[in-house]
Amino acid sequence: MDYQHLLADRTNLMQANAIREILKVVANPGIISLAGGIPSPDSFPMDIIQELSDKVLKKYKSNAFQYDLTEGFLPLREQLSILLEQKGIHALPDAVNITSGSQGVLDAIAKLTISKGDKIALEAPTYLGALSAFNPYEPDYIRMDMDDEGLVPDSLEHTLQTHDIKFIYLVPTFQNPTGRTLTLERRRKIAEIIQRHNVLLVEDDPYSALRYKGDPVPAIKTLAPDHVVYISTLSKVFAPGLRIGFYAAPKFIREWLVLVKQGVDLHTSTFNQALAAEYLEGGYLSTHLPRIIDLYNPRQKAMQDALNRFLPKGFTCAPSDGGMFLWVTGPKGFKALSLYDKAIENGVAFVPGQFFYTNPEEGLETMRLNYTMADEATIEIAVEKLATAIHSIQK
Amino acid sequence: MDYQHLLADRTNLMQANAIREILKVVANPGIISLAGGIPSPDSFPMDIIQELSDKVLKKYKSNAFQYDLTEGFLPLREQLSILLEQKGIHALPDAVNITSGSQGVLDAIAKLTISKGDKIALEAPTYLGALSAFNPYEPDYIRMDMDDEGLVPDSLEHTLQTHDIKFIYLVPTFQNPTGRTLTLERRRKIAEIIQRHNVLLVEDDPYSALRYKGDPVPAIKTLAPDHVVYISTLSKVFAPGLRIGFYAAPKFIREWLVLVKQGVDLHTSTFNQALAAEYLEGGYLSTHLPRIIDLYNPRQKAMQDALNRFLPKGFTCAPSDGGMFLWVTGPKGFKALSLYDKAIENGVAFVPGQFFYTNPEEGLETMRLNYTMADEATIEIAVEKLATAIHSIQK
Repeated sequence: MDYQHLLADRTNLMQANAIREILKVVANPGIISLAGGIPSPDSFPMDIIQELSDKVLKKYKSNAFQYDLTEGFLPLREQLSILLEQKGIHALPDAVNITSGSQGVLDAIAKLTISKGDKIALEAPTYLGALSAFNPYEPDYIRMDMDDEGLVPDSLEHTLQTHDIKFIYLVPTFQNPTGRTLTLERRRKIAEIIQRHNVLLVEDDPYSALRYKGDPVPAIKTLAPDHVVYISTLSKVFAPGLRIGFYAAPKFIREWLVLVKQGVDLHTSTFNQALAAEYLEGGYLSTHLPRIIDLYNPRQKAMQDALNRFLPKGFTCAPSDGGMFLWVTGPKGFKALSLYDKAIENGVAFVPGQFFYTNPEEGLETMRLNYTMADEATIEIAVEKLATAIHSIQK
Repeated sequence: MDYQHLLADRTNLMQANAIREILKVVANPGIISLAGGIPSPDSFPMDIIQELSDKVLKKYKSNAFQYDLTEGFLPLREQLSILLEQKGIHALPDAVNITSGSQGVLDAIAKLTISKGDKIALEAPTYLGALSAFNPYEPDYIRMDMDDEGLVPDSLEHTLQTHDIKFIYLVPTFQNPTGRTLTLERRRKIAEIIQRHNVLLVEDDPYSALRYKGDPVPAIKTLAPDHVVYISTLSKVFAPGLRIGFYAAPKFIREWLVLVKQGVDLHTSTFNQALAAEYLEGGYLSTHLPRIIDLYNPRQKAMQDALNRFLPKGFTCAPSDGGMFLWVTGPKGFKALSLYDKAIENGVAFVPGQFFYTNPEEGLETMRLNYTMADEATIEIAVEKLATAIHSIQK
């Protein structure tokens, strides 16, 4: 039969994730991949999973395998409420909801709010997974300027003065793809701006626990609680394969998001939520997180050092105090996409930065480099190979 | 701030699931609930979960906790391919995809295919969770006639002659809510009709393994493979809290559904998929399923017997050979919703059948009764209480 006519109009905006396609290529042996965006398996607390599983079976028995509330498993919500309180975010357990990864809440927010043509304001560049979540609901994107201190507040102000915006989407801390962090001063300005314009901010914060230097900065949620949906995940500090995301949102939005999620997947795995509850309740996160940081910190440093050493003149790396990525910008006229084949030939993969922009003209000279999946020595070799590839196409 | 203006147009069609609201009421102690729709926790293979978990940790190590393919965890897809082959459904492992519960694929199909106003043809009554999945995409519903042998083929033929239908949605075996099964003769007719009209059928099959009497009937998928998306789940034969659904679909549709799912939740829990793979690969399903059937079969029989014994004249129960529900129809003029308060007063809860119809005028005299959550003696008492309530409002 002819299946083409089955497609809804919204499929026009849905494309295979370009990075996903790149990742397939770089799974080839012999290539060092700086293209990925996933945590190192060495960061998972494998030594205690068995113990957590035993505890869950003993404590919750068959309840851990039964259908559960769409809102989330209460013991986990209680633990996350405590975790959020430590970050200055006040949310009682019944005000913290669980989703299937943070992707689950990005989808739910888009489904709840976006009618075709509604405008979403984004950092340029932005997180690609958010675009995958938003695209099917056919929004228009308004791109806003960033620099090394994160989103430029004047750009937000201008956007809100000239457009009717459904919501703003930001990754303010150790952003994917740039690794940049919005400064405290700018967070205060942004909180003031969104409150004055009465606009909703979706603050996506998967990485802030992965800080390798400098002082923590408060979430924007703490500065404008009624105007922010704060999203985070246990994927980077526990295990991504368990698919545990969570959010704190104003009551009206939260109740609607539950209704949305009910139609999408009923609820998130009860067993996995129970494992996560035990991970937090048993204090394992606080002992394990320093181990994750000790794993990644030298990798970030190795990459920053190698970039300083090997990159040709005119190439710069954005400052970053944490997360999983570094962001390299080449000189004007440099085309990262043209480098790609040569880099693969030299045995190293990266993601051309242009894929993270909604405007196809932007970011042509940028590259995203991941440092969580390779050790320091390998990272140094990879950066040298990358630099060699750059030299060879610049000849 | 004012949140109301944030809502997308599609939220007009999204309401709190009526049954969910009913279930909240009946959680009160002292009420025997026939209103639920969930498996008994006694049906979960709790005695082997620890063993499965140990095996997964040993075999897959950190891979069971890492991000994985949107399509699903390959070892599970291999096992499901074998399971489907036993049902006469030919799908190689890479043609079987995993979703977060069967709800996940219902959402994905709707998102992929429904533009506002597109027509979906449904049995009247139909599964409420499917409506929760479809509603946000703003379809129009065309209801089709059912009788004790399932969907009436002439009603399907008429529907396809008079409407341009995006897809047909059926639960052909032990349907929720009616417990009815489409006969083999009708399956053949329906396969012929959908092939002749070149229309897609979504065949939802969560219950067929729970057969207490009679011979298995083949899935419609086996009769019209190119025209059917076949959906099933491990929620009724393993554990619902693990949220493992799966489907076999024509390649074009399958590839699009993967793209859709990528934006919704990236992938389903790797760990839970690995547990399910071990459950199937270790042969546990084939030893455990008879235990589930031995648990439910006498419960169904106890309910059927009690209904025969206690129900007043004019009330009938639809024949059913399996699943989780029985469907009672009262005489013309009987209003099940009016019985509800009296039944609760008498200490028994059920779901008025009208909630399972898209046309609010239909099914006023019907009731859905669940028999998986109470033992035989309790079921007998519950049905007697229900009958007493009916007598008292009929006076």
